[in-house]
Amino acid sequence: MIKGKQSLSFTRTPYITSSGCVAGSKEAKGPLGKKIDMTNQDDLFGEKTWEAAESEMQKEACIVALGKAHVDPAQVRYLYGGDLLRQGIATTMGIESLQIPMFGLFGACSTSGEALALGAMSVAAGYGNYVLAVTSSHFGSAEKEFRFPLGYANQRPLSAQWTVTGSGAFLVGAEKSRLNTEGVRENCHVRIAGVTIGKIVDYGLKDSQNMGACMAPAAADTIQQNFEDFGRTANDYDRIFTGDLGQVGQTILLDIMNNRGYDLKDRHQDCGLIIYHRIKQDVHAGGSGCGCAAVTLSSYILPKIAKGEWKRVLFVPTGALMSTVSYNEGDSVPGIAHGIVLEHC
Amino acid sequence: MIKGKQSLSFTRTPYITSSGCVAGSKEAKGPLGKKIDMTNQDDLFGEKTWEAAESEMQKEACIVALGKAHVDPAQVRYLYGGDLLRQGIATTMGIESLQIPMFGLFGACSTSGEALALGAMSVAAGYGNYVLAVTSSHFGSAEKEFRFPLGYANQRPLSAQWTVTGSGAFLVGAEKSRLNTEGVRENCHVRIAGVTIGKIVDYGLKDSQNMGACMAPAAADTIQQNFEDFGRTANDYDRIFTGDLGQVGQTILLDIMNNRGYDLKDRHQDCGLIIYHRIKQDVHAGGSGCGCAAVTLSSYILPKIAKGEWKRVLFVPTGALMSTVSYNEGDSVPGIAHGIVLEHC
Repeated sequence: MIKGKQSLSFTRTPYITSSGCVAGSKEAKGPLGKKIDMTNQDDLFGEKTWEAAESEMQKEACIVALGKAHVDPAQVRYLYGGDLLRQGIATTMGIESLQIPMFGLFGACSTSGEALALGAMSVAAGYGNYVLAVTSSHFGSAEKEFRFPLGYANQRPLSAQWTVTGSGAFLVGAEKSRLNTEGVRENCHVRIAGVTIGKIVDYGLKDSQNMGACMAPAAADTIQQNFEDFGRTANDYDRIFTGDLGQVGQTILLDIMNNRGYDLKDRHQDCGLIIYHRIKQDVHAGGSGCGCAAVTLSSYILPKIAKGEWKRVLFVPTGALMSTVSYNEGDSVPGIAHGIVLEHC
Repeated sequence: MIKGKQSLSFTRTPYITSSGCVAGSKEAKGPLGKKIDMTNQDDLFGEKTWEAAESEMQKEACIVALGKAHVDPAQVRYLYGGDLLRQGIATTMGIESLQIPMFGLFGACSTSGEALALGAMSVAAGYGNYVLAVTSSHFGSAEKEFRFPLGYANQRPLSAQWTVTGSGAFLVGAEKSRLNTEGVRENCHVRIAGVTIGKIVDYGLKDSQNMGACMAPAAADTIQQNFEDFGRTANDYDRIFTGDLGQVGQTILLDIMNNRGYDLKDRHQDCGLIIYHRIKQDVHAGGSGCGCAAVTLSSYILPKIAKGEWKRVLFVPTGALMSTVSYNEGDSVPGIAHGIVLEHC
């Protein structure tokens, strides 16, 4: 069960029973646009505030995930959820109506990894047949939370990333099969074989507009720890995905890993570089936000694992741990990253 | 393992191996002052900002808890921690130097319950021999986060509560015994027998200066659910503690429970009414904050359970889920509460 220093492997592996993702208008025009379950041309999602729009996305993502598996909220034992906003308010207001006993999380953009890890740990321990893991981010609410209200039209440096307007929800289940739309049981083809929980890694960087650089060392540590704990090399994974390092962070990650003797170049991809046409859509270094990794996992990564195109994938959402208060007070921006081992089955 | 709708009981019960608590000058003058492990007359704890002071308290609380059990941070598998500040920054900066793989949490003032529940679930599942659960709050940082900077000297209504400057850390362990200061193994006398995870409960209240009223319905639901899930009545507990309902919230809780046919009067206590001399220290409705329940648990409740004075206690930290943005945008303030069943052993 316990693997090495920071990892767990599950003897009774939990499955990703289903997933749902919802995103905004910019994501709809990106490379994953047609693969996302629901996109909306109205980034307010019919609501009056960015925060309420984000909550609405979370609720919809959960409902889509539950709907695909024909599972009722009352059958879901626990929900693990979080977002980027202060006091996790998008999650509170978003999932309130589902009335599932809940654990609020904060791991910055690593939250989808944190939620999936805790969900898998709960199901593997027999604490429930189903749990939900959900995260979200919204460009409008994130700019307001961390930088300036959109109306200020502030300039962004080229190292900055574009917060994804999106939410992804994952139903983690104990059973290998689920009901399909015809009411027939069919197998789920993705299991969570193990997790590697990250430590806080702080290289002393203070530039909140260069989060890729702040997070890359944490991603490197978690990936290396995963290799050591499971006795693996990069070759044991068909793909290794980080959450939202972007162009700057990816370069740093590959450099750090190279210096440590690991060559990830031919199998590393970053969700922040998948979700947008980086140059054409003018997102500078790439996408970011809790929604970035979650939407990419649901719309792009899981279907390929389910089909057997990839047999084993390491999914590593990355977070930059900061607040407006911490960086205004001169603190550094440490990073954290959690690794989820996903296998075709 | 699964009990009723929202609860878990542990067959291999985890133990509270040790705990540590740290608090400020006002708490030092309160009824628990002499029982708190460390108090400081300097509420800045030698730091330059309220946030850094809060982080320092968290770190010290962890170190005290670890020290009492002669356990090194490297032996702690995972840490579950959170606080009230945006993006949980007090926790990030506080526990960074311990270098324990960590899960960041947000459950407002219910976070000590959330952290203890997840800690117990992890240890009971065999995911580690030791995990740490830690939370904190600070009067200065909370006023700045939610209300006004202290220098504004803003007026508080009588329903308002006083945020506790304090932190509590709990080492949850799989072994019944621990090393004492003489290097001899002695038994731990408190075990976590079960947990009841709360749902979000929203009665539509919008007064962020009356958090007791916002949280009381959530406390009532979790307590009632605990009774139903475990097939118990109030008489099966020697004491039932809520986290920080204060005077107003306690009255509402007892009324709601009375209407539902449960009389808690002779066994309910609220940590917010224990930690201060309410009238003499002019805290209005009582204490609040993540630190309120955590410090009271560590300094007052656990020692009495360990001595066998109380055989079984239900500990129910309560949280008001809101941010300055949510209440400025007119949202209600929903509550959440998690129940931890603590038993003498």
